[in-house]
Amino acid sequence: MELVPYLAFLSAVAALGVAVFFFNDVKKASPGNERMVFIMTEIQKGAKAFLKQEYTWVSAFVVVLALLLAVFVDPLASISYVLGAFLSAAAGYAGMTVATMANARTTEAAKDGPGKALPIAFRGGAVMGFSVAGMALAGLSFVYLLFVVWLETDSAFEIVTAYGLGASSIALFSRVGGGIFTKAADVGADLVGKVEAGIPEDDPRNPATIADNVGDNVGDVAGMGADLFESYAGSIIAPISLVAFAVGISASGADGAPSATDSGVISLLMFPFAVAFVGMVASIIGSFLVKGGSSTDSRALSKALHLGTNVAMGLTVLGTLALSFWMFSDLEQPVGLALSVVGGLIVGWALGKCAEYYTSDHFGPVKKIANQTETGAATTVLSGISTGMISVLPSVLLIVIGVGVAWYGGEWAFGDTASFGALEGGIYGIAVAAIGMLATTGVVVSVDAYGPIADNAGGIAEMAELDPSVREVTDALDSLGNTTAAVAKGFAVGSAALTALALFKSFEFAINQAGGEPLDLNIGNVEVFVGLFLGAMLPFLFAALTIDAVGRAAQEMIEEVRRQFREIPGLREGKPGVIPDSARCVAISTKASLREMIVPGALAVVVPLVIGFISVDALGGFLAGALVTGFALAIFMANAGGAWDNAKKYIEAGHHGGKNSDAHKAGVVGDTVGDPFKDTSGPSLNILIKLMSMVSVVVAGLIVRYSLMAMGIF
Amino acid sequence: MELVPYLAFLSAVAALGVAVFFFNDVKKASPGNERMVFIMTEIQKGAKAFLKQEYTWVSAFVVVLALLLAVFVDPLASISYVLGAFLSAAAGYAGMTVATMANARTTEAAKDGPGKALPIAFRGGAVMGFSVAGMALAGLSFVYLLFVVWLETDSAFEIVTAYGLGASSIALFSRVGGGIFTKAADVGADLVGKVEAGIPEDDPRNPATIADNVGDNVGDVAGMGADLFESYAGSIIAPISLVAFAVGISASGADGAPSATDSGVISLLMFPFAVAFVGMVASIIGSFLVKGGSSTDSRALSKALHLGTNVAMGLTVLGTLALSFWMFSDLEQPVGLALSVVGGLIVGWALGKCAEYYTSDHFGPVKKIANQTETGAATTVLSGISTGMISVLPSVLLIVIGVGVAWYGGEWAFGDTASFGALEGGIYGIAVAAIGMLATTGVVVSVDAYGPIADNAGGIAEMAELDPSVREVTDALDSLGNTTAAVAKGFAVGSAALTALALFKSFEFAINQAGGEPLDLNIGNVEVFVGLFLGAMLPFLFAALTIDAVGRAAQEMIEEVRRQFREIPGLREGKPGVIPDSARCVAISTKASLREMIVPGALAVVVPLVIGFISVDALGGFLAGALVTGFALAIFMANAGGAWDNAKKYIEAGHHGGKNSDAHKAGVVGDTVGDPFKDTSGPSLNILIKLMSMVSVVVAGLIVRYSLMAMGIF
Repeated sequence: MELVPYLAFLSAVAALGVAVFFFNDVKKASPGNERMVFIMTEIQKGAKAFLKQEYTWVSAFVVVLALLLAVFVDPLASISYVLGAFLSAAAGYAGMTVATMANARTTEAAKDGPGKALPIAFRGGAVMGFSVAGMALAGLSFVYLLFVVWLETDSAFEIVTAYGLGASSIALFSRVGGGIFTKAADVGADLVGKVEAGIPEDDPRNPATIADNVGDNVGDVAGMGADLFESYAGSIIAPISLVAFAVGISASGADGAPSATDSGVISLLMFPFAVAFVGMVASIIGSFLVKGGSSTDSRALSKALHLGTNVAMGLTVLGTLALSFWMFSDLEQPVGLALSVVGGLIVGWALGKCAEYYTSDHFGPVKKIANQTETGAATTVLSGISTGMISVLPSVLLIVIGVGVAWYGGEWAFGDTASFGALEGGIYGIAVAAIGMLATTGVVVSVDAYGPIADNAGGIAEMAELDPSVREVTDALDSLGNTTAAVAKGFAVGSAALTALALFKSFEFAINQAGGEPLDLNIGNVEVFVGLFLGAMLPFLFAALTIDAVGRAAQEMIEEVRRQFREIPGLREGKPGVIPDSARCVAISTKASLREMIVPGALAVVVPLVIGFISVDALGGFLAGALVTGFALAIFMANAGGAWDNAKKYIEAGHHGGKNSDAHKAGVVGDTVGDPFKDTSGPSLNILIKLMSMVSVVVAGLIVRYSLMAMGIF
Repeated sequence: MELVPYLAFLSAVAALGVAVFFFNDVKKASPGNERMVFIMTEIQKGAKAFLKQEYTWVSAFVVVLALLLAVFVDPLASISYVLGAFLSAAAGYAGMTVATMANARTTEAAKDGPGKALPIAFRGGAVMGFSVAGMALAGLSFVYLLFVVWLETDSAFEIVTAYGLGASSIALFSRVGGGIFTKAADVGADLVGKVEAGIPEDDPRNPATIADNVGDNVGDVAGMGADLFESYAGSIIAPISLVAFAVGISASGADGAPSATDSGVISLLMFPFAVAFVGMVASIIGSFLVKGGSSTDSRALSKALHLGTNVAMGLTVLGTLALSFWMFSDLEQPVGLALSVVGGLIVGWALGKCAEYYTSDHFGPVKKIANQTETGAATTVLSGISTGMISVLPSVLLIVIGVGVAWYGGEWAFGDTASFGALEGGIYGIAVAAIGMLATTGVVVSVDAYGPIADNAGGIAEMAELDPSVREVTDALDSLGNTTAAVAKGFAVGSAALTALALFKSFEFAINQAGGEPLDLNIGNVEVFVGLFLGAMLPFLFAALTIDAVGRAAQEMIEEVRRQFREIPGLREGKPGVIPDSARCVAISTKASLREMIVPGALAVVVPLVIGFISVDALGGFLAGALVTGFALAIFMANAGGAWDNAKKYIEAGHHGGKNSDAHKAGVVGDTVGDPFKDTSGPSLNILIKLMSMVSVVVAGLIVRYSLMAMGIF
């Protein structure tokens, strides 16, 4: 059993090896003609410049927080925190470098048909997938081994949690910063290019086109990667820290507390690593099954793309079953915890399907919105809003079912005999339920990053003015990834709720461990109720700040694009040899997005600290309020945004008058409203919830000592 | 002390006398020429037809719920329930009858200047104000006297709470039904009339114009009246039921429980009635101070209009101070509870000012939205959404401050010595904090109902094609009421949060009183957390349903208006003698809104029952989650809607290109999106929260016995 973290570490190293292998594979392919290479290099330069600047800014934040952690919590926690942040950034950087290499190569291969282009785009995405999963697991298992097993440090479990805090910090800034960048560029390119200048999307004359493509990479690739890095790490950390704080173990077993190597507890601590190990091996196997062949049939190609994910998930389920019997033979019903994990997986999958139902143009809701475009922009906006709001109902019901199943699985497993301090079987079941969804992160992120690569490949085909047939191939490739992307989205959302719930319990245990008055989390306690009010408010505030940030950044972009069309002679007319100053647009989007991400990012750390220092009970209410309201608001915004996006595409495909009809104009309004909903505010909210919980767990000891309420000042 | 409910009853009867006096006063005035009388009668007929049908439908609901109450709770509870519902409906009917009489009379008087028209509009509104306050208080004090004092019935306090439940049922249906009616007519009239046919607002050619004016009455007058009826009754009931369930008194003092006449408890029970009595007397005095005179200066007129409210509030504050010393001389700090009441009043006032800041064109937010209209509808919508969301921050902070001040006032008053069972001073402080805001309901609603009367008067001036100077006078009158209306809105919102919080505590005590396992409302309890998730979901679902309902109803109206323009020859061209079929538009809006109000209305009763029967703990979480998320969502929707509305008006006043500019078109989109936000979903959410809490309090005994969790079935 003690070998499990070593196995996890080795599987993570193997995943990094796979990433290197795929990297070389992609590198070998031809990037196409001079024009294509030029565009690719521009996108690459823009993306790298953004990431470098973003990481510079974020490192200031990381350094400050690391210092605070070192002074107030534990110097070792700050090391773990920085490592989590660094690895997340490194994975994002590596993955994006390859993604921006794979785009032109996919375009080039698309000349020979989709079967040739598919593996390049997938393997480009797989570098991201396995960098993210490999680095996250390697770093986490290393931190665990170092502080818990080898050094037996005092606050070992706070230190392990700090790793997740580092990952969350990067994730929040990447999602917010990347989300602002990509939407500012998108809105700027669309509003001036398509609407005012009347030139098509991805037209080389539009100065914001490169920035738009850069945005796809920094938002959808790097941002998504950092998001999944933290979700993945968080899903493993949450049950570990839950067990540690509930049972009250210390790594050293000092003070008569049970040690992390006590036989009863060790299985509970090792199970998350074991599932991660199985999932990683399964992901590696799955990723090698994705082959294109010579087929041009989109069903066969779709099958090829999803084969990897499906095999990986199947293997993980089987492996988890086996693990539960092996690791929990002492419990009453070993299979109970496998039920929790598989239940989580199924609910995550169902959440993805639910999102797909509300946002895909194959189903009623998007068609209804498309219908409403005929009566103008106002009815389009209203029907999108109500669609997004309605979708909260099934999503919450699924989460409730997931929580219920995971709870009963855990209770069933523990039965009446197992006793681990304050730890109930049910809550452990909830904590491990998120792992099932994320164990196959390697291959899931591969398919998720495949999407933007194929999308970018299309953009390059357009900008390089290649034969329209190439664009058709890349468009077909692009649409293949959607189903898996929807499932990945469901996993991200579902795991966020479950992980945050587990972290909430960890917070409760950590506070009670830290001594002082025990937490009174009764809703009837007025401090808790005040916390609930404040918690319900924060997601609205956060969403408002990010929406406004996109608006301001887009405004700057619009002005710059207008300026270029006005001041560069011959640009609008497409005079040969006249090229726009794309670099300047990239620089504007970079600067604006970095400036705008500071306040919402800082909020996530500062607000729980301030509330905690006033009243620990209120902080408990705050976290719960922010979790449930944030979850609902995130679902609403993500699904409304996705639905508007696809309603517009549905019209563009020739319905309700097609492109340039009045219905289309209304659809564009909906899509533009939805842009920050689905790509900035919505996904950031999920990270926000977890980040605030982790901050609270890590500083629990501190706020118990210095809280004003606890000190009797209030 | 025992005389207090009698005094309250007498003051309520006096208020009804004032209503009759003002009614005769209004009736005496001339309704103008034949055309004006015709229009007035059309509006009146439409409004009455709607109300009659609405009440028919709602009585089916009331009968079903009354039967359920009779069978499962107590037959007397159903009597009290029906009385609350009936009086609310009667007050709405009476008030609206006079409002629809006062409109044309205001128009007629406006020919002689604003000083003549102001008192008519105010006294028309005052019939509503004093009908609402008088009937609510008369009924409630009668129910209290009958069941608690005279009959000493067993479940006397459930029976008193059931009165509020009746008022809430009517309020929810009136707000939802009226809100759908008014917005369907408004959107239909605007989209086809202004946009498609290109004719001005309130043009007699538009078939939906009468329906639009009917809508103002059924939505803004009857809906608002029912809303305030239930807020007012609820604010008195909440502290009474809180005391009863916390102290565990029964009316008869049976089973050794303290009786409702025990000297320590009696002050706590009587204080709400005493404040209501003082507020009612103050309102009556204030209402007679509103005089127009011959002034045409808008500042002087505004002063005249607000003098009544300001005097009434000042008197109420002084009276409450005196009451606290008289009634609570046994407590450590008698003035503490006056602090709670006045603190609530100030916070309610500040909430209104906060709403005004975000929705009035005198301040930054609305100007920012107006600015964003220049880049189109999408940026207009986004900036309105972010404005509404940002406004949640100060509103929640104000509520938190209000809760804090009221809590400390109560704790201070009780000190260390006072002991009333489970009742803490703080929570009693919170419960009475809402009364301060609502004690002056009589005069506050008068000014609130004054607004739509003046608005309607303008519509009649337009439709009767009077001299434009008349319209100018009515427009000036209309804008005078805004400040007080904003304060009234703040009162409605603030009292909803405080009342619901007090009812939540009543629920907790009622469950624990009912025997069985005590409630475990710890957030760490997974059932409570699941309840929180479901509670956070419900407001989104409710908002979505009401938005969709408005959309569907508006669609039917649009088609009807289009049909009339198409099929009635000469209508669009304004051929003399050709009049539209307004009655048909009214009928369509009536039918659609009644059909659409059923599902959201039933939801409010069914969902808490279902959750409660599964798990009582989950119901506690559910109520708390619905309260905090519902409050945030209601603030967001109300303020976003108000801001869009005034941004459009700001443009129409000549900014950003004025009427018919592109900016104006974008502004109209924002306004249309905001219509159901501010007039249907937003205000209904506040009632929803309270209604669900009251349902839970009343059925507490029932669900404790039959809950599946309690019976061990789960």
